[in-house]
Amino acid sequence: MLPIETIPEIIEQYELGRFDYALIPIENSIEGPVSIAIDKLYHQSTATVVAEIVMPIVQNLMALSENIKPLKIYSHPQALAQTREYLRKNYPESKLIPVASTAMAAEFVQEHPNEAIAAVGNERAADFYSLKLIAKGIQDIEENNTRFWLLGKNEPKINLSKSSDKVSLALTLPENMPGALHKAISTFAWRGIDMTKIESRPLKTKLGKYFFIIDLVSDDKISFALEELESLGIVVRMLGAYSIYEG
Amino acid sequence: MLPIETIPEIIEQYELGRFDYALIPIENSIEGPVSIAIDKLYHQSTATVVAEIVMPIVQNLMALSENIKPLKIYSHPQALAQTREYLRKNYPESKLIPVASTAMAAEFVQEHPNEAIAAVGNERAADFYSLKLIAKGIQDIEENNTRFWLLGKNEPKINLSKSSDKVSLALTLPENMPGALHKAISTFAWRGIDMTKIESRPLKTKLGKYFFIIDLVSDDKISFALEELESLGIVVRMLGAYSIYEG
Repeated sequence: MLPIETIPEIIEQYELGRFDYALIPIENSIEGPVSIAIDKLYHQSTATVVAEIVMPIVQNLMALSENIKPLKIYSHPQALAQTREYLRKNYPESKLIPVASTAMAAEFVQEHPNEAIAAVGNERAADFYSLKLIAKGIQDIEENNTRFWLLGKNEPKINLSKSSDKVSLALTLPENMPGALHKAISTFAWRGIDMTKIESRPLKTKLGKYFFIIDLVSDDKISFALEELESLGIVVRMLGAYSIYEG
Repeated sequence: MLPIETIPEIIEQYELGRFDYALIPIENSIEGPVSIAIDKLYHQSTATVVAEIVMPIVQNLMALSENIKPLKIYSHPQALAQTREYLRKNYPESKLIPVASTAMAAEFVQEHPNEAIAAVGNERAADFYSLKLIAKGIQDIEENNTRFWLLGKNEPKINLSKSSDKVSLALTLPENMPGALHKAISTFAWRGIDMTKIESRPLKTKLGKYFFIIDLVSDDKISFALEELESLGIVVRMLGAYSIYEG
C-alpha cells in the first residue's frame, strides 16, 4: 500500500508501472464527480477500470485535546461544506478556514499545539496526526458515499459484497453532426440498455466542446450498440466492464 | 460593486435582496462546471439568469519583489494545475503549495515579506495585495475562458459584444421511467432544437440520483417541448432565457 499526494500522480505512477493497482475517487454522492480524476483518465491514461468500490464517508471533528473550544476549524472546503450545519449549531463562534486537504488541516492542528484550533476529517487523519476525536460522524447528510475506481490489468479478489455489474464508456462526438448526442443515447435506448449516468466533461480545447462519460447496466446487447456508434462516426473508448462492491 | 467571499454566499445575499444583480462563475473551459454554483442555484435558489458573460482567464506569477527566486509558490489547486508546465519548466526548484483561493495565496505572500515566496493569480489580486508581476499570462493552455451567469430580475445594459441566445433548463426525471433521459432529449431532438450541453449533477439524496442541466440554442419550438416534458412527468425548471456576451 502506497499513499500518493494527488490523484493525477496516482494515475501517472500507475501508468509508469510502479504498482499493480491504483484506487482513485470518481464521484461523491453530495459533491458530484471528481473531475480531476476523470479528466486525467480520459486525456492522459489508457488504464482500465477493473472494479468499483462504494465507500461511506464519515467526517469527524478532531484536535490535540478533547476539551478544546476551537476558535478556528480547518478543513478542505468540501468537508467544511458537508459539516456546515453541525458546526454552525455547535460551534457558532468558531471561524471556518478552508485549506487544500483534510490531511493538511490535521497536520496544521498537530503543528500548532498552543492554538485553540481543530480540524474536520476522517479517523485515519486523526490517527496519523495523533489527534483526539472531539465529535464523530458530524456530516449533515447521513447518506454520503464516494465511488472509487480500481485500475488494473484484471480484477483481484475483493472481500466486499458485490452488488451489480456495469460498463463505463467515454464518447467523443463528431464536430458537425446535429443531434449527435441524441443519436448516441438512442443506440442504447432502443435496445433497452439501461443508462444510469451521463456526464459531460470539457475537451479542454474550446469552451462548449465536451466528451461524455456514460454508465450502462451490464447487458449482452452493448457490443451491438458500440458497433452502431462506430458506424455513426462516434469515437468510443471502453473505460471498463466491472463489478460494483459495497465497502 | 460588492465582492463576497464564496459563491454560495453571493447567491444567498442576492436571494435576501441585498443587491440587484449577482455575477457567478458557472463553467471553465479547462476545469469544467463550477459545481458549487450550479448546486446552490438548483437546490436553494429561485434566481433567474438574465445574461451570460464569457471572460478570458489570465494567470500571472506575482511576489513582493520582481527579482525574487521563489522557493515556494502558492495558489488555488486549479490555478496551479493551469500553470503546471510553465512552473515546472521555469521554476523546477520551487515547491507548489495549494491553498483555498488565489486571493488567499496573494494575501499570504503579502503578509510574509521575509520569505522567498510567490503566488499565482489574476492581475486584480496583484493590485489589491500590492504585489509585483514577475511573469504575465503563464497559463499552459491559451484558450482558457470562464462562463459567468448574471442573476437578476431583468437584463441590464451590457457594453460587450453579444454573440447568441440560449435557454438553460434543469430537469428532474421521474423515478421509475426506464429510458427517461432518452425521452427527455428526444423531445428536443425530433423538433430540431439544438442541445449544446447536458450535465448531470447529484440530487444529494442517494448516489446515482441526478438532475440535469441542459443548454439549448434559443428556438420558438422550445415552449412545445416543455409542454411535452411536463406531460411525461418530467419536472422542468427554467433557469433562464438569455443572451451570451463576450468579455
